[in-house]
Amino acid sequence: MKLLKERIRTEATVIGSQVLKVDHFLNHQVDVDFLHKIGAEFYERFKDEPITKILTVEASGIAVAVATAWFFHVPVVFAKKSDSRNLDQDTYTSEVFSFTRNNCYWMKVSWRYLDAQDHVLIIDDFLAKGRAVQGMIDIVHQAGASLAGVGIVIEKGFQEGGSQLREQGINISSLAIIESMDENHIEFRDQ
Amino acid sequence: MKLLKERIRTEATVIGSQVLKVDHFLNHQVDVDFLHKIGAEFYERFKDEPITKILTVEASGIAVAVATAWFFHVPVVFAKKSDSRNLDQDTYTSEVFSFTRNNCYWMKVSWRYLDAQDHVLIIDDFLAKGRAVQGMIDIVHQAGASLAGVGIVIEKGFQEGGSQLREQGINISSLAIIESMDENHIEFRDQ
Repeated sequence: MKLLKERIRTEATVIGSQVLKVDHFLNHQVDVDFLHKIGAEFYERFKDEPITKILTVEASGIAVAVATAWFFHVPVVFAKKSDSRNLDQDTYTSEVFSFTRNNCYWMKVSWRYLDAQDHVLIIDDFLAKGRAVQGMIDIVHQAGASLAGVGIVIEKGFQEGGSQLREQGINISSLAIIESMDENHIEFRDQ
Repeated sequence: MKLLKERIRTEATVIGSQVLKVDHFLNHQVDVDFLHKIGAEFYERFKDEPITKILTVEASGIAVAVATAWFFHVPVVFAKKSDSRNLDQDTYTSEVFSFTRNNCYWMKVSWRYLDAQDHVLIIDDFLAKGRAVQGMIDIVHQAGASLAGVGIVIEKGFQEGGSQLREQGINISSLAIIESMDENHIEFRDQ
């Protein structure tokens, strides 16, 4: 998505070789008019799939998922993060290791909101090592639902999440894939 | 908002006299087409204010805030929740007691995304004891910004949050105010 790459190139802050900050338009402050364009782009890429639900995980995936669902006219389900496995008897639960927080959390979705009739599009803002997306795929499988694909706003192509998902045959579509970056230059993968 | 009250009356699950579950359309699964109507309703109620930012708090406020910002064409800022006060030197921070979790968290917004030029509309999905909204108002004040008002989807009128805010002279507008409820009946306040 050309406009997204331009915004990343001209506005993002890179810290070291790993951290890309775009929290002024994507994940702390949200530019809602721009988000509308992102939703439209995901719709273009997945509109031939008979999507019934859009699945994301709290918190920063929610805005992107809502903008995408706008075009599909299907519900968003957002997985909840919990520090405890606890005793919920009515949720699909997947354990996810967070490299940001350096610990595990449990991702949970109520049985009521995903089932074998669903054809699910997973949406998230970032993909790096891919643990959150793998957790959501696990939940789609637990529900017996089918997976239409995975839509990511910004993929860090120099981390392994994207290539692992592609090796699994997952239909993953990232609006911008960063091949490498440092404080002076951001290199995107040709798509 | 008549349609919202109808949905609450016919679809919500009440547990005891305190817990209202609407997580099939508002805060776990989100009915995005209905959310659009909620955003339009908040726009009608606050459109005469020169809003520059919509402020909410992760996670379940985000979807409602995005739907509202759609109509105002202004950015959403979502406050982040943190379990630690830690050492961020560039955030407005407010300590909030959560009755749901029975502990405190710190609500944080970067200095970059709110300032004295801003006229802020606070949006949240639920209002009960009002601690999250009070935290957001505290942050608006720390930023030197002005407060246009507070828009709430569902207010539990039998808890003290709403009346405390009104006593402070806050322009608060709730789309549905529940006066009392039990498993057989939900009574709304006349508005």
